[in-house]
Amino acid sequence: MKVTVSRKAHFNAAHRLYRKDWNFEKNEDIFGKCNNPNFHGHNYELIASVTGDIDKETGYVIDMKVLKDIIKSEVEDAFDHKNLNLEVPEFTDLNPTAENIAVVIYNKMKSKLDSNLELEITLYETPRNFVSYSGR
Amino acid sequence: MKVTVSRKAHFNAAHRLYRKDWNFEKNEDIFGKCNNPNFHGHNYELIASVTGDIDKETGYVIDMKVLKDIIKSEVEDAFDHKNLNLEVPEFTDLNPTAENIAVVIYNKMKSKLDSNLELEITLYETPRNFVSYSGR
Amino acid sequence: MKVTVSRKAHFNAAHRLYRKDWNFEKNEDIFGKCNNPNFHGHNYELIASVTGDIDKETGYVIDMKVLKDIIKSEVEDAFDHKNLNLEVPEFTDLNPTAENIAVVIYNKMKSKLDSNLELEITLYETPRNFVSYSGR
Amino acid sequence: MKVTVSRKAHFNAAHRLYRKDWNFEKNEDIFGKCNNPNFHGHNYELIASVTGDIDKETGYVIDMKVLKDIIKSEVEDAFDHKNLNLEVPEFTDLNPTAENIAVVIYNKMKSKLDSNLELEITLYETPRNFVSYSGR
Amino acid sequence: MKVTVSRKAHFNAAHRLYRKDWNFEKNEDIFGKCNNPNFHGHNYELIASVTGDIDKETGYVIDMKVLKDIIKSEVEDAFDHKNLNLEVPEFTDLNPTAENIAVVIYNKMKSKLDSNLELEITLYETPRNFVSYSGR
Amino acid sequence: MKVTVSRKAHFNAAHRLYRKDWNFEKNEDIFGKCNNPNFHGHNYELIASVTGDIDKETGYVIDMKVLKDIIKSEVEDAFDHKNLNLEVPEFTDLNPTAENIAVVIYNKMKSKLDSNLELEITLYETPRNFVSYSGR
Repeated sequence: MKVTVSRKAHFNAAHRLYRKDWNFEKNEDIFGKCNNPNFHGHNYELIASVTGDIDKETGYVIDMKVLKDIIKSEVEDAFDHKNLNLEVPEFTDLNPTAENIAVVIYNKMKSKLDSNLELEITLYETPRNFVSYSGR
Repeated sequence: MKVTVSRKAHFNAAHRLYRKDWNFEKNEDIFGKCNNPNFHGHNYELIASVTGDIDKETGYVIDMKVLKDIIKSEVEDAFDHKNLNLEVPEFTDLNPTAENIAVVIYNKMKSKLDSNLELEITLYETPRNFVSYSGR
Repeated sequence: MKVTVSRKAHFNAAHRLYRKDWNFEKNEDIFGKCNNPNFHGHNYELIASVTGDIDKETGYVIDMKVLKDIIKSEVEDAFDHKNLNLEVPEFTDLNPTAENIAVVIYNKMKSKLDSNLELEITLYETPRNFVSYSGR
Repeated sequence: MKVTVSRKAHFNAAHRLYRKDWNFEKNEDIFGKCNNPNFHGHNYELIASVTGDIDKETGYVIDMKVLKDIIKSEVEDAFDHKNLNLEVPEFTDLNPTAENIAVVIYNKMKSKLDSNLELEITLYETPRNFVSYSGR
Repeated sequence: MKVTVSRKAHFNAAHRLYRKDWNFEKNEDIFGKCNNPNFHGHNYELIASVTGDIDKETGYVIDMKVLKDIIKSEVEDAFDHKNLNLEVPEFTDLNPTAENIAVVIYNKMKSKLDSNLELEITLYETPRNFVSYSGR
Repeated sequence: MKVTVSRKAHFNAAHRLYRKDWNFEKNEDIFGKCNNPNFHGHNYELIASVTGDIDKETGYVIDMKVLKDIIKSEVEDAFDHKNLNLEVPEFTDLNPTAENIAVVIYNKMKSKLDSNLELEITLYETPRNFVSYSGR
């Protein structure tokens, strides 16, 4: 019996969408207001969903406290109140679009979970725009 | 790396659920209050979800502005503040249930997207009732 | 000790904003898309808030079941799945703007409550637009 | 054309997470505050999602009133305002974790649906923690 | 310049509505399903709103961390995962209706705030029912 | 008959909380993570609430399109995708706390409204923290 267990969390951060190897005009053309060199920011809402078998002893797929701690160490401590471009190493050479942030979070969290557990990351950049990634 | 990018939108409209080839009693029996000949209405909340590979140059699956424009031209301009039965051609002979509206939106939007992108439509008819369709 | 007790409810309805004593052009100019002669519609979300003293015996300001029943008889049964212009007598000669609907709901519900209870009506016409009225 | 139709519902209940065959210390170690022998409780928010073909006559996958009635008889009447451990037979020997509650709801509802309809249960234990199960 | 600063928090708990000095039938008549002797429970959502002048030096009415700590010590540590009737002293002889819980929270938190700050407590017992109290 | 009409809007921005006339240590002590010199950011959710008499001709307190346009020119065009400290003149010498942002928005919008209309600004800095200001 495969059950998916999900937990919501959030962090807020500044970012800028641009490529260092493009000039300002091309970045402005592709990324528009998101290319503001002084940065803008978001409240990112995260849903981490873990799928696996129910443990017959505990009735848990994963102890929610364990999942909460992995989110805290891998996401909140790493990203919250940060400038993603300047202070988070994964984005030194990677454009911090919602898509790329979701993939980075997936890779960081997946490595901390039992290998028989599947993971899906859903990330809201604004209340109206969100992305999801499950390693496929 | 397949990522799903979703955007929320909304429109409001009047509609009536009934079949022209049934008499009033049969429509009343099947569709109840939704068969009101004077119409009733809803705030429809839409989530359009597009799945595809991340473009390595931009970090986008699809530019959110492109997705927003397709939603505007195919859904908002066509349905918002309209009477679905009387003013939207797709429903001249098709009962505007939430299921059928979702399929119509899917077909209209899918034809505007690159063929290598998948689409899923989620449509809230009320805060408690919603449907989803992904072309399968 | 004055406490306010609130209950959420909802109904959906069709309506048209216009004045019978104006011509179509003037109605179109003032009410825009809301003047569609074929009607449009909304999911109206209602919050009814009743303020009064806590009853020392029960610990209630008002029994929520009583409030729920008043909302049902005065609002849901009267407005749900209706065409406000054609089927709700209060709007025969009153434009069913959110403001006017809130006042009508206030007057209907206030008359069913103990006179020492205050009432405030909050009405969402869409998730982004709402009005409130408390009889002042 | 497979469409998924979803309806939200809710119930509130008391519960305690523990195993009768473990001593208090082991239960405390594994289940923490959730092992409170005096119980605690939740507002459980349920989303029941039914997938099937659109009926060409009605335009429905399932009449929402039918789905609402199944939720009422199988979930709300059985669980609402109850102590899950003491008053719901399915949990006499089954730990009422969110995972196990979702499986129990799935089994109860699935048996009432046409066999060609698929079912997925999503259950929020708190606004931040939720699980889903679809019989796989 | 008076500004109101609000913070949301939550706790979950079991409770039973009844009076010890009434017999079971009278309690059942007045409190219905809420009189279940085995208890039921809720996710209580709290909004604590503090009104005062903006401090010209910091630009704060109150440091959100201070407000968060008061909510934690006075509400979360005292009520979360508890049986309100059996484990929270304030309800030994006080019926734990939403109204009375809001007043208890108000009194506990008010005593920890500077006397020149006003407080309003809003407490959701379910997503559809909530109460508010501001000491008047 | 005084009715309050509210409209939601949003913008996202980067900011830093600090005073130029304090050294880094004092700013760090008072503003903690919010003093990050590389900035962080938020999705700010705005509710602008306008109170006045219902116009007997139109049934409106204020035309929602007028309110929407004032929000766009005074708030969205001025703040969205901006760095509040570096790019919004009002915050050159004013710490952009939620409290101060609400007061600035109030002052900008109030000057564009008829003088007989009252205004209240509610501003969510995160889904859990918000402030409100009504000129008193």
